[in-house]
Parts: sequence; structure tokens; C-alpha cells
Amino acid sequence: MSLITINENGFLDEIKGKKGLFSCVISSIETTKYVPISGVHRDVIAYTPAADMELVVLGKSICLPTPPIDATGCPSPATITRACVDLKNIPALTIDAGCFVKPNVPYIKVNENPTGDIRKGKAMKNSKELFEKGYTLGKNLIYDCLIVGESVPGGTTTALGVLIGLGYDAEGKVSSGSVNNPHELKMEVVRSGLKSAKIEIGKSSVFDVLNAVGDTMMPTVAGMAIAAVENKKPVILAGGTQMAAVLAVIKEINKDAIKSGLISIGTTEFVLNDKNADLKGIVEQIGDVPILASKFYYEKAKIDGLRAYCRGSVKEGVGAGGIAAYAYINGLKPDDVRRYVENNYYRWYKNIINMEINKE
Amino acid sequence: MSLITINENGFLDEIKGKKGLFSCVISSIETTKYVPISGVHRDVIAYTPAADMELVVLGKSICLPTPPIDATGCPSPATITRACVDLKNIPALTIDAGCFVKPNVPYIKVNENPTGDIRKGKAMKNSKELFEKGYTLGKNLIYDCLIVGESVPGGTTTALGVLIGLGYDAEGKVSSGSVNNPHELKMEVVRSGLKSAKIEIGKSSVFDVLNAVGDTMMPTVAGMAIAAVENKKPVILAGGTQMAAVLAVIKEINKDAIKSGLISIGTTEFVLNDKNADLKGIVEQIGDVPILASKFYYEKAKIDGLRAYCRGSVKEGVGAGGIAAYAYINGLKPDDVRRYVENNYYRWYKNIINMEINKE
Repeated sequence: MSLITINENGFLDEIKGKKGLFSCVISSIETTKYVPISGVHRDVIAYTPAADMELVVLGKSICLPTPPIDATGCPSPATITRACVDLKNIPALTIDAGCFVKPNVPYIKVNENPTGDIRKGKAMKNSKELFEKGYTLGKNLIYDCLIVGESVPGGTTTALGVLIGLGYDAEGKVSSGSVNNPHELKMEVVRSGLKSAKIEIGKSSVFDVLNAVGDTMMPTVAGMAIAAVENKKPVILAGGTQMAAVLAVIKEINKDAIKSGLISIGTTEFVLNDKNADLKGIVEQIGDVPILASKFYYEKAKIDGLRAYCRGSVKEGVGAGGIAAYAYINGLKPDDVRRYVENNYYRWYKNIINMEINKE
Repeated sequence: MSLITINENGFLDEIKGKKGLFSCVISSIETTKYVPISGVHRDVIAYTPAADMELVVLGKSICLPTPPIDATGCPSPATITRACVDLKNIPALTIDAGCFVKPNVPYIKVNENPTGDIRKGKAMKNSKELFEKGYTLGKNLIYDCLIVGESVPGGTTTALGVLIGLGYDAEGKVSSGSVNNPHELKMEVVRSGLKSAKIEIGKSSVFDVLNAVGDTMMPTVAGMAIAAVENKKPVILAGGTQMAAVLAVIKEINKDAIKSGLISIGTTEFVLNDKNADLKGIVEQIGDVPILASKFYYEKAKIDGLRAYCRGSVKEGVGAGGIAAYAYINGLKPDDVRRYVENNYYRWYKNIINMEINKE
């Protein structure tokens, strides 16, 4: 078995044999400079989205000596995304919604500034314009299936903020890239941001909520997804609880899109089975939307950093779960992904491995 | 008759019924600030590429009060491109290879700086990197036919420079957006640039020639085209003598691409029939490449600014001739384009028309 599905409702037939385009919307959040809401190390957090997409598109990171890797030695989920892109020859586009560091690959620019400080309720000023840019983009790309991922360090806190702001029961339910999910810290940031921006829970408009405590990835992806549905093409929102927040944003803007049967959430087993979060519980509040969760059998991995996924490290990101779901439906096997990552691991991380050896 | 073809060799069959993606690479050239090598007015030249692509993608220019229009009242060729995009529902992407002013649409960024001063032989430093970025991009977009245009004010002079630098007989042969083509001025700029950069005519490498007197659009488009040919997809280099220079660049990098039968030049009748230039004479020196020239029957136009095309104004740009060729092969008629532009002209240019009325 390569996929766990919930509410599948024929979605897999929609993506089988279809030419898929992978795109990944990247953004930085200013708050991550001051508050440890992300599991990514503060020294590299500004570089992470760029390094992720360099790996996916080029097969190596350029702006960092190695692809991102966390404190537990767990490699970036971009390694999974790269495996799918390379093995299934899937075109991959980077969309910059505002990153501190820009990737050394061609990228589509939709926004100048990174997401601001959500503690102050000042995430952005232009969420409506970003929605429109995402929509324009979704209308001007060719695909038969659109897979949209994200790389936004700190993005589960903005997900929490937007879900709470829109009136969902999300406290304690968003996931984390860390083994230990700092729920209370995230809630503190969100409460502060919602209060500062005078958001009325469940009453303020979606764009006001996004401007206060969202991130710039969210309206961009929402626009792309709604354009795809209008084009009658299936969309995989490739991510965990961050994409559940995008789903909630889409519902506010276009209820019919949610009911179209063309939008799914594609994530990893690590998010779906996360005991410190509740993706399913969030999505159920939004609608009958298919959830696809990719399995990886990383417990069989030879490299400890990969087995760390099974112990709760990293879990998801850079569209890993969603693109794997698309790739599995189109012939790839979880073992292919694992072997690809194992085979490339020492090449990708040789600079760190060399550093470790020199330290000894 | 909607098309004039030279060396067609079955190319039209390659693009018929194929899903086409239009992309337009935009760049500014520093030299245009100091030397009147472009027909575009100095006050708006920095805004022209951005305003062109806003019109194509959104149906209106945002960064200028109207779409670009020349001193003879002749509207930007982007009006033709917009007609094709809208009437045939063709996706359109903007690729920024370095513009003074950025468009208010999502755009793919491949380069930071505009083209430098070609008089000094300092067009750019990174033509090889731009070629690689274009190649990566061409590999990561989905299309069954790639149409690549340009909006580069001053770009016929860089075309001349690159053709001469590579050893072609191009003097007096490049076209112009003006009725009067300042051949001698262009040659003076090119001679100065080639000398300053110590280019050996016909001997220096293509990337050295580009770095000296090219523009940043050229290596980007060359990379995209070679990627498309590797993907076995037909490419229309949508432009006049500027695209002939790109063709020469492609030949230096990959001779087989030129011989593949998958690359054509698509332009307008106004360029092909330009008595002050010789597109055919340049292309013949490069190879047996199909030339498609779109007809517009603008002599029938109700608006004088459109009839100005027949008197030698503007002639081509923003991929107008190439996208029209693709659209004609796929069912559009020249009269459809003319009527669309006529019907939208007063809406697009109402701000100028109002200004004229207020002056009276």
C-alpha cells in the first residue's frame, strides 16, 4: 500500500495518467527571526525555501553547502520531492511570494516582501492582490493536474492563525516540523496577532484575517487553485495543516471550488498520523475534501536521518506528500523514493558529513 | 491568405492542433538612455516592456496610463498579441531578464540587472548562466508548442552586434521599430562595443559576444528553445531580426537544434517586407529555418494608428507575428485580430484620447 485515502470520492481517477505540473510557493516569515515557532535552525531559516527548491529543480542546493537538514539529522522533505520530480520527469516551478533569500533557479515572482510579524497582526497588506496574482498565474500555466506545495518555515503558526481567525476549532490541531510541537507558543503568537489587528473571530473577512496572521503563500495558492478548478483541472494542495488553512481560505472566496471534487489535500503519513496534531479534524470542519497521505516505509531506511521521519521529525514540506501521491498513482512505488533518497544522500550531504568527520 | 512562409518544410503541421504556450522575455538596455537606437520615446522606454506584458496578460496596461504607442500614433504590437491570447485562450507568461520597470503581473525572474551599455562592450557578465536559466525554464514548463517573443527596446542594435560579432553579414540588414532605420548609428554603437570588448569577429565565443554587445533576452530565449527541441516540441521564435540573432546564438551552442526542423522564426509581414532590412538574407546565412510571416490587412483598418504599420511604424514586437502565425494555423483569421484591436482601441487608449481632447 502506498497511499492512505480519506473521502477519496474518485479523485484518484482525476489525476491518473494526467500531465502534472509541480509548483511550490515559498515565503519567509519575519516572526521566525524572533520566536522559535519553526523547527528550522535560526542560522539557516532564511535560506531554507531557496535551498529546497534548488534541490528539487537542479538536484543540488546552491545557496547552502547542503540541502536543509534538521537538528535530528533528518533531511529536508525536498529530498522526497526531488525523487518524484526526477524519477517521474515532473516539471517543477518555484513561486516566490516573498523570501529572504532567492533561489538560484528561474522563479516566478508574485510578491516583493516576506510575510511580516504576525505577533503584531501585520502579516501583509496585499493578500487580495496576491490572491489575484495567484489566480492570473493559475490561468496562464499549462497542466492537466496542478500540484502546489509550500516551503514556509513557521507556516504552521500562520495556518493556526488563519484557521482560528476564520472561526475553526484548530487549537492544538496544527502540525509541526519538530518532534515537540510548541502549541502554546504558537497560540500565544496567534492571540497576540489577532488582537493587535482587531480581528473578530469568524466574522472578519478572509483578506483581513490573512493580512493579520496569514502568510503570503496562502492567498497565492488559493488563487492558483481556484483558477485550476475553473479550468476544470484537478488540484493537489500538497502539504499538511498549512494546506488545510489554504483550503479554508479557498472556501471563504469560492465555496463551489471546495464542492467541485477537484481539490484534494495531499500529504504524508507522518502528518496524517501525527498524534500532536489533527489534520483530519480540521479538514472535516471545512468540507468533504479528499485527503491523500503518502506512505514511505522509512522504518526500513538504511540512513538514520530518514528513520527520524518515523520518530516525528520534519514530517512534510516542499509538497513532498502531495507530489508522492501523484507519482504513486502514476506508477512510482514508495521503495523507489526511499532508494533514490538513500542513493543520493551521501552526495547531497557530503559537505556536512565531511565537517562531522573533520570534527572527530 | 493569412501567412507568408519561406522554407516551411512541414513546420505548420508540427504546430497545428498543439497546445501552445506563449512566453515573452523582456529586458531593458542601458544604452537606450543615452543613444536614440530605439524608436520608443525616451520618457516611456523604461516602462514599455512591463506595460506591454500587462496588456497581454490582463487586457490593460497598469504601469502606464495607456499601452505603449509611438510618435506616429501607432499602437504597441502587444495589441496584436493580446488579441491572439484572448481570442484563442493562449496562456501567456512574462519572463524578466532584467527590466528597469517590473510588470504588475506574475513574472518569471531569470536575471537581476538590465542589459548594460553595449557601446562599452559591457552588455552583461552572465550570458552563459542566463542560457542555463532559460534551459532550466524550458525544461520545467508544460507545452506542446512553445512561442517565445521579446520586448526589448533597442534590441535590433544588440541583434546587429551579435550577428556581426559572430561573423554574419548583417550590416544594414536589421529591422527597426521606426520608419527611418538609423543603420549608421547602430553600426557606430556596435563597432564601439565590439572594439571595447576586444571581440574577434567570427572567432570569439558566443558567450563572449553576448557579454559584449548582446542583450539578456538572447541567451534566455536560446536556452528555452534548446530545451524545447530536446523535449521534441516545436518552437516559434516570435520576432523579427532580433530572433534571427537568437537563432545564430542557438546555432553556436547546438547545431543540431537548428537542423531539427523544430525551430522556426515567426514574424510579421511588416518585418519580412521591410525594405530597410533583410530578415530573409540573415536567416539564409544561418540555416534552412522556416520563416512564417503573419499578414494583418491593416490597410483596411478604420484607425489611422493601425494603418501606420503599413507605412513602416513599429512593425513587430512582443511576439506579435509569431503568436499570430500560431493562432492562424489554429483557426484565427487576420480580420479577427484587426477587429479585436479596433474594438478595444478606444478603451485602451482613452487616457491619451482624453488628453488630446483636453489639449484642443
